[in-house]
Amino acid sequence: MTAQNVWNDIVTIRRTSPVVHNITNYVVMNTTANALLALGASPVMAHADGEVEDMVGIASALVINIGTLSDPWIASMKKAMTAAHRRNVPVVLDPVGAGATALRTRTVHELLNTAPVAIIRGNASEIRALRITGAGTKGVDSTDSSDSAFDAARQLAILHHCVVSVSGEKDLVVSETRFTRVLNGHPMMPRVTGLGCTAAALTGAFAAVNPDRFDAAVHGMAVMGIAGEIAAEKAAGPGTLQLHFLDSLYGLTEADIRYRIRVDET
Amino acid sequence: MTAQNVWNDIVTIRRTSPVVHNITNYVVMNTTANALLALGASPVMAHADGEVEDMVGIASALVINIGTLSDPWIASMKKAMTAAHRRNVPVVLDPVGAGATALRTRTVHELLNTAPVAIIRGNASEIRALRITGAGTKGVDSTDSSDSAFDAARQLAILHHCVVSVSGEKDLVVSETRFTRVLNGHPMMPRVTGLGCTAAALTGAFAAVNPDRFDAAVHGMAVMGIAGEIAAEKAAGPGTLQLHFLDSLYGLTEADIRYRIRVDET
Amino acid sequence: MTAQNVWNDIVTIRRTSPVVHNITNYVVMNTTANALLALGASPVMAHADGEVEDMVGIASALVINIGTLSDPWIASMKKAMTAAHRRNVPVVLDPVGAGATALRTRTVHELLNTAPVAIIRGNASEIRALRITGAGTKGVDSTDSSDSAFDAARQLAILHHCVVSVSGEKDLVVSETRFTRVLNGHPMMPRVTGLGCTAAALTGAFAAVNPDRFDAAVHGMAVMGIAGEIAAEKAAGPGTLQLHFLDSLYGLTEADIRYRIRVDET
Repeated sequence: MTAQNVWNDIVTIRRTSPVVHNITNYVVMNTTANALLALGASPVMAHADGEVEDMVGIASALVINIGTLSDPWIASMKKAMTAAHRRNVPVVLDPVGAGATALRTRTVHELLNTAPVAIIRGNASEIRALRITGAGTKGVDSTDSSDSAFDAARQLAILHHCVVSVSGEKDLVVSETRFTRVLNGHPMMPRVTGLGCTAAALTGAFAAVNPDRFDAAVHGMAVMGIAGEIAAEKAAGPGTLQLHFLDSLYGLTEADIRYRIRVDET
Repeated sequence: MTAQNVWNDIVTIRRTSPVVHNITNYVVMNTTANALLALGASPVMAHADGEVEDMVGIASALVINIGTLSDPWIASMKKAMTAAHRRNVPVVLDPVGAGATALRTRTVHELLNTAPVAIIRGNASEIRALRITGAGTKGVDSTDSSDSAFDAARQLAILHHCVVSVSGEKDLVVSETRFTRVLNGHPMMPRVTGLGCTAAALTGAFAAVNPDRFDAAVHGMAVMGIAGEIAAEKAAGPGTLQLHFLDSLYGLTEADIRYRIRVDET
Repeated sequence: MTAQNVWNDIVTIRRTSPVVHNITNYVVMNTTANALLALGASPVMAHADGEVEDMVGIASALVINIGTLSDPWIASMKKAMTAAHRRNVPVVLDPVGAGATALRTRTVHELLNTAPVAIIRGNASEIRALRITGAGTKGVDSTDSSDSAFDAARQLAILHHCVVSVSGEKDLVVSETRFTRVLNGHPMMPRVTGLGCTAAALTGAFAAVNPDRFDAAVHGMAVMGIAGEIAAEKAAGPGTLQLHFLDSLYGLTEADIRYRIRVDET
């Protein structure tokens, strides 16, 4: 059933090319845009104070990623989120490196208090860093299991009435009342920079076409993992993995989804 | 005849490595620089108020791309264009997302009124958005045919005494008195982010070595299309297309140009 | 002996994943991060005034690259370098385009006077531009041989008590008292944008695990060259070279180092 729903969303994305507005970090802009195009969505990147509201106006989802912060960008993120709330555009927030510096942790809390978000998508150490009690993180990468972030994810989900999607060897998607594990993926994926950011962007594309935020988050992670698995079968390392990942996304078939999806809805 | 002229320009670019100064968007900086290097040119990226004039001073072409605008960058673009005009360095302007937001459309008009440009290179919806009467656009991608922008392109060409190069399934190059269609290319190319921006950058490299702006614009689009076709024959999707595109540019031979070029000079 | 030492460093990097904090240019952020991940290090990119000191606090090396300068970034670079000095974190400085504009040359001198650097890594024309007597440069690429920069490198090494690593067909590493040539590499490498910047970042990873700065600089260049050679054997052009380079870094074995390394310690 999940497989059918994932496939329906992919078909809708390919047919309608929803505009996904990204305010994201410099490291991943190119690869994020390429992943959205490969999936069938229409990415835009815009951060200027003078245009973010207009851009939200033509978007079906807004993805906010704090990977390379600075003050003017934070102001634009808030402005865009407020506009998205007014226009009922779903917001996906990627708290890259939360916990690594005080600025990042504080900024995420400020953004969460600026306007509602539909989905928070981070790795385990980032999500744990957002607990009110706090936690440490090492750089922007995480090797912790997503389960270690379950309590923090549930807390965030309740506090902000949102879905929290925790990526890891197993991905964990948590809402106020539900949770699901997505088992797809490949161990080489964390060796490509920004695949977490790509997960957030694809989640945005699913949120653009699927009003159920929990399903959108699960579908985003399942498609990431499946495309990663297909790519890893052809890749000789993280360099070629990155390219085959885009090819896999572009070529995904209903059979790929049906035979590969591994979702644990315990 | 066109094939011979295109090849002559390629040989000149490879021999002289003209410096092409780009003030472009964050999404495509890497791929644009790689495309210029693969063609044989010498890319520089510089946007600081304190150095753009110096950089224009060592450049043979200036490429301005508004893909990720902000106020300081707009100021630097104007400063660089004024310096280019003073030094007789040809300017290529890529109005990415014109029409998508008021900021972008207004900025393009401001830039066009700051200093003369040699070539404007955009997709059909961007060029149509620059008509004085205005028009809408959806995001930064365009699926419209280039012919739909003919009137707008001609209007721009007359108003600003420049060449307008409209990319699409067929590319259209228009001056005040001439027009040509370039039929090369492959339908998968729009699924790679920033290939339009790459077209503008390569057009800059041709403008650096060819004083005839119309020919430079035609040669830029022909080489884009031919390299894209060769790449598509080897690619399994947009990920690998992007890499093979660079390899193809790097390896272009006179025979590739001669046997593949499809230019309609009706 | 050098081969064994290089391999020991690689093993340490893979085992400890040192955090390498980069304040670098927009063009290469993605490829730099990917190269560090492929080698086994943990890259972070952060430039905000409000977080660079915190980020240095969790880093084992700081890499400063001036490829796309602006005033706020220069201020953050100084702040980060001062924090690195206080915490004894080694700093690698990449003077991209020094000599191309007055801003770049002046900024490098300002940075060098802000806090001590462990290693300066540039191409021959950049290093020559940093001589007190000055010199010209063409754009940000260099075709000059590294030997042409020997005197300038020695002068910089003495003046700033640092190691100077000059990349070129042969790489040259110079300290106040020693020098070594690294002969590894492939002529296609300069046709990929930012491989010089990648060399600086990898040098940072070696400086993070090896307290001998001279050895760290030599090891960084040797690994760059060896990974480039392996990649070039599989590549059809600069596009695929870039990807195979990452795969090669990721898969480097002790035998690759032992049988390929060519270091001339005259």
